Amino acid sequence: MLTVYTEQHRLQHGNAELVDGTLKPCFENPSRADMVLAEVDRAGFERIAPTDHGKAPILAVHRDNYVRFLETFWSRWTAPSRRSKTGRTYDALPLIWPTRCFRQIEPQDIDGQLGYFSMDAGTPVTAGTWPAAYWSAQTALTGADRLLAGERAAFALCRPPGHHAAADVFGGYCFFNNAAIAAQHLRDSGLGRVAILDVDYHHGNGTQQIFYDRADVLFVSIHGDPRTEFPFYLGFADERGAGEGEGCNLNLPLPAGSDVPTWMAALEQACTAIAAFRPDALVVSLGLDTYEGDPISTFKLKTADFHAVGARLARLGLQTLFCLEGGYAVGPIGENAVSVLNGFDGH
Amino acid sequence: MLTVYTEQHRLQHGNAELVDGTLKPCFENPSRADMVLAEVDRAGFERIAPTDHGKAPILAVHRDNYVRFLETFWSRWTAPSRRSKTGRTYDALPLIWPTRCFRQIEPQDIDGQLGYFSMDAGTPVTAGTWPAAYWSAQTALTGADRLLAGERAAFALCRPPGHHAAADVFGGYCFFNNAAIAAQHLRDSGLGRVAILDVDYHHGNGTQQIFYDRADVLFVSIHGDPRTEFPFYLGFADERGAGEGEGCNLNLPLPAGSDVPTWMAALEQACTAIAAFRPDALVVSLGLDTYEGDPISTFKLKTADFHAVGARLARLGLQTLFCLEGGYAVGPIGENAVSVLNGFDGH
Repeated sequence: MLTVYTEQHRLQHGNAELVDGTLKPCFENPSRADMVLAEVDRAGFERIAPTDHGKAPILAVHRDNYVRFLETFWSRWTAPSRRSKTGRTYDALPLIWPTRCFRQIEPQDIDGQLGYFSMDAGTPVTAGTWPAAYWSAQTALTGADRLLAGERAAFALCRPPGHHAAADVFGGYCFFNNAAIAAQHLRDSGLGRVAILDVDYHHGNGTQQIFYDRADVLFVSIHGDPRTEFPFYLGFADERGAGEGEGCNLNLPLPAGSDVPTWMAALEQACTAIAAFRPDALVVSLGLDTYEGDPISTFKLKTADFHAVGARLARLGLQTLFCLEGGYAVGPIGENAVSVLNGFDGH
Repeated sequence: MLTVYTEQHRLQHGNAELVDGTLKPCFENPSRADMVLAEVDRAGFERIAPTDHGKAPILAVHRDNYVRFLETFWSRWTAPSRRSKTGRTYDALPLIWPTRCFRQIEPQDIDGQLGYFSMDAGTPVTAGTWPAAYWSAQTALTGADRLLAGERAAFALCRPPGHHAAADVFGGYCFFNNAAIAAQHLRDSGLGRVAILDVDYHHGNGTQQIFYDRADVLFVSIHGDPRTEFPFYLGFADERGAGEGEGCNLNLPLPAGSDVPTWMAALEQACTAIAAFRPDALVVSLGLDTYEGDPISTFKLKTADFHAVGARLARLGLQTLFCLEGGYAVGPIGENAVSVLNGFDGH
């Protein structure tokens, strides 16, 4: 499986995330990509570096002011200001969010903007967030290019992940929605219809939001029921799309602790919906946190099950781009990723 | 000045709040009330304890599910669960908030509910939050009772503060909106019209939200411009009320760093609006963080200026309930509070 990878991901290495009122080391850290890369290399996959597509394909999915905020954040954050005479040098987390009791107006102040453009306190913005997120998106775009060039499939080893990032909101460890950017790039390159399948344990709220009113991109997600699982406030079964996109959004929430047959039945349902949509290509948001050993999730997939997932996706007969999303059992994450990809390739 | 006070406030003593991505000791802590109480006692004010009005007057302002959430939170948080086999014993802060990219659905899960009912990461929910917030509201209610009994004025030494708390959202150190609860209690006890003046440095977003579409309660606030000041997403001059409440909301945002004459001119404008509303009583959200020495604010009032504030408010000729809100220059907070109250009383 052709794999796209760059070391730029290392630049996103946050110190801490807020969990339950305590600051803990970031679950989403560079060792995740290291473990995947090691297994990719062990499997002998061809590996290429991403090419630079510039900001245009990112701006096709994300809002101008949001992209500008992320690009300029660190220089503003570290500049001397009223809040810090010497400038701030530590990772930033927001302190307030514009929830339902507020208006949605972008503040002038960087601290207010941090909350305006975000959804959680688990996603530090660091000195390297911009280049890391930028190159993660380029990684997905380069994988999409290979599909356009005729390749059956490619694996974009994206980090930071993307599926929680909405048009102008970061969070859930995500800044740019790599899968959405790749899907839009495929559309803008001439493909008529693209399906996105999100198999991460957590609902891909950002991807859903980006394409919710569109009929040209199908979004299907299998995930932990948001009534009890992060991100809590989106991913319900009754979200079927809006306007022209009515019927082009399929959420398959499963109760926390669901077993493998239940998950596989949902995958079957997802594949049926994707086949019925008759897309010209498939983008897979490949989270590996459905693994039985994942520290923050509750599904039960074993490494062999991931092979079956890949094999099932291959039977869709579609050009397929895999984009790495979550997965926090760092040790087995690479083995599980490669298991999906080998399953797809019939190895 | 008759003062209502209870030791119950001590039960809210959070360990930390999130500031800029670091956890810092809570600015809002029991020593604030201690300093105010010491000056109240030194001034020789009559002091009474709050009486218990039950939950009904709180539920007249806050939503049922929100009140239930706060009342039951600690026993649920500390119960053994999937997320913690032994139960959690540390203060809680949310990890994700339902911002504009999400639906507004109350989750079943306590971690999801924490974010659903909140707006920031600076307001820990602790073992003692419920009784402290409950009795802070009772303190305001008891002060309101004294107005109903004919007293010219009373001072509710409320802690935790209240003006950031919306109908079903806590944050900004606030859980129950004491001033709003008192104002509603005055209305429900037969007064036709009540004005609320919020002189805290930060906009009283919760109070505004609670009364925004009502013509019987005027809300006037003088505060740092939300474009650069917490809470950032409400408090703009164009927010004039909605529906029947059109014209009954007056925000007077001032640029960060505004001088005393500028602030006093805004107070004059506020008093003109209050007089024109012809209320039957006035509730003052008394923040002291307009003080020149406040560590998180930028206005310049000196202790003598606070005396002038009280004197100006007295000239409105209204029965007046003062409810303590913010103020984080802990040393002078008591002197400044008493300066307002003595100014009002003509001492």
